[in-house]
Amino acid sequence: MKYLLFAGSLRADSLNKKLIAVANRILGSNTENTVQLLDLKSLNIPVYDGDLEASGLPEGVKALGNAISDADALIIASPEYNGSIAGTLKNTTDWVSRIKPNPFSKKPVLLLGASPGYYGSIRGLNQTRIPFDNMGCNVYFQTYPLPMAGNAFDSHGHLTDAQNQSRLEHLLNSFSQYAGTFK
Amino acid sequence: MKYLLFAGSLRADSLNKKLIAVANRILGSNTENTVQLLDLKSLNIPVYDGDLEASGLPEGVKALGNAISDADALIIASPEYNGSIAGTLKNTTDWVSRIKPNPFSKKPVLLLGASPGYYGSIRGLNQTRIPFDNMGCNVYFQTYPLPMAGNAFDSHGHLTDAQNQSRLEHLLNSFSQYAGTFK
Amino acid sequence: MKYLLFAGSLRADSLNKKLIAVANRILGSNTENTVQLLDLKSLNIPVYDGDLEASGLPEGVKALGNAISDADALIIASPEYNGSIAGTLKNTTDWVSRIKPNPFSKKPVLLLGASPGYYGSIRGLNQTRIPFDNMGCNVYFQTYPLPMAGNAFDSHGHLTDAQNQSRLEHLLNSFSQYAGTFK
Amino acid sequence: MKYLLFAGSLRADSLNKKLIAVANRILGSNTENTVQLLDLKSLNIPVYDGDLEASGLPEGVKALGNAISDADALIIASPEYNGSIAGTLKNTTDWVSRIKPNPFSKKPVLLLGASPGYYGSIRGLNQTRIPFDNMGCNVYFQTYPLPMAGNAFDSHGHLTDAQNQSRLEHLLNSFSQYAGTFK
Repeated sequence: MKYLLFAGSLRADSLNKKLIAVANRILGSNTENTVQLLDLKSLNIPVYDGDLEASGLPEGVKALGNAISDADALIIASPEYNGSIAGTLKNTTDWVSRIKPNPFSKKPVLLLGASPGYYGSIRGLNQTRIPFDNMGCNVYFQTYPLPMAGNAFDSHGHLTDAQNQSRLEHLLNSFSQYAGTFK
Repeated sequence: MKYLLFAGSLRADSLNKKLIAVANRILGSNTENTVQLLDLKSLNIPVYDGDLEASGLPEGVKALGNAISDADALIIASPEYNGSIAGTLKNTTDWVSRIKPNPFSKKPVLLLGASPGYYGSIRGLNQTRIPFDNMGCNVYFQTYPLPMAGNAFDSHGHLTDAQNQSRLEHLLNSFSQYAGTFK
Repeated sequence: MKYLLFAGSLRADSLNKKLIAVANRILGSNTENTVQLLDLKSLNIPVYDGDLEASGLPEGVKALGNAISDADALIIASPEYNGSIAGTLKNTTDWVSRIKPNPFSKKPVLLLGASPGYYGSIRGLNQTRIPFDNMGCNVYFQTYPLPMAGNAFDSHGHLTDAQNQSRLEHLLNSFSQYAGTFK
Repeated sequence: MKYLLFAGSLRADSLNKKLIAVANRILGSNTENTVQLLDLKSLNIPVYDGDLEASGLPEGVKALGNAISDADALIIASPEYNGSIAGTLKNTTDWVSRIKPNPFSKKPVLLLGASPGYYGSIRGLNQTRIPFDNMGCNVYFQTYPLPMAGNAFDSHGHLTDAQNQSRLEHLLNSFSQYAGTFK
């Protein structure tokens, strides 16, 4: 299986970038998997503007679209803002969905969400899946909320709590089986 | 009453810019109202990035925050993308919500949505209200979906269908009474 | 493929019972399919009450659970009430989800919705999918809203508009391919 | 202020009945308030059926409708089932919304939710508000999720954790000010 992973944040020290890096290490340690970890910041995707689109899709949008098309499955870690999907992720998604055919179509998707608060972006995760459902992605029914994420990682980026680690390993394992159905 | 109106689109010829301009004319024709129509494009708000925020809020974010704080009520016309809130609007909202105290808090909000399709962004409007509810806005329970909006305006930007026009006038009237409750 | 079909309404003359009957005829006309059309009214499922459950699941709940377990795919036509899932359908779903293991788990689900209004229960369909997603159903990304359904059927229960009929046939066909993935 | 309070559960020993009783005691201890605590079980409301409605609204529905009309504000504690609104509450709401004019219209509503799990029905609360928003209720933007509710009450029905108690008192206080706006 070929996985594409990215975070819905741009900040260098983002909790969701740390979380997606952990998922990347877990999947990459299985030699049957190919993993690609993308940093949205490097893609320089602007705010969506139909006038900009009229002069051609930005290079970063095309690059992300190609990476999605090449992957068998997507894993996205994204923050919750105002009880809903992060604007950065929605903006990126809106751009990619302008590529015809939509690279997201039929892709198995797993959603993770780290948050400094008690509820670990659980509301955000529920809202985040809606546009992916709408585009015809196969969104896995379980998500991975990581509450209190400000204290969840050590200085090497490892999850310090063994339960958080094994919960993620189990979820990645069951998602892999689900994603395999669509291959 | 002092109204702030803007569209969640950047494109110059946007259907939602046309719709918000109609709402602006209706409200502005009542001498008891003060209206301000903002074009998000002129604010040059970048994609949200915590590292950018660390060096200060962008000028456009501060300007929008001030305009929201000054207004008694907000009217926003926004497209639906992928059955959900437009990334452009969510990105803008995420930035403004970083101002303390959040200028959106307790503001009465009316949501309009023009769409070229049959369903007139009705799904998008339902998703769009969620972050505004979450921030403690008083979101009016009725919205204004405008289906088939590609053919809804004449070359002067007027709604050609008398029912669409009177439906909007009635909604603005009932929203004004609602918004007055909070003044 | 073995399909279970039911409406989320109890009323004998329900628009959604008419719609699910059309879907049943289309699928049943293919000799490779087995179809079962259930009437929730005949199951006499009470309002959910944990004290009632403590003395054993109602017979109607067990019967529906068995029918779901036996099926390869589910098709549900349900009204929208107050912009959300019909209480009758949610109540039925809550009861069935108390069976261990949950019969809904991993079932492919297609949602239809007839409504007398212009928007054809499009908001309700979006809300209705949420508990099914949550239970781990594989909910098909496209739904079938039927607007103006009060005038959509002739006295024999056929769809009078050829486009409505062919739209349903195409959707059932693409859903069948999707549901086959999970068999 | 005149408050109507009820739980969305029928079970005698329901966690949400315990929670709503705590809210009732807090509000009732202020002599400026009138409180009415209703038990939905005593109303014997059947599953919604249009054929039943055609022969007249059930007595329990009329009684609840009258109680809602008489109240200045509503407080509802309800469980989450399958990540969404409890079928029992939605069924009750669907019935009441058939009364013309809808007694829920414009009522200030506060939503509470007790749950035995870590997330305290936070997903359910977000879904539960949607039909109330849709009916034109003024739903308060903050809710009260009570996680780990199986251990939250002592044998007298008091909240054992002082923070849970003061969190509820503060929320009831800010909701009272909000609800007063609409009186």
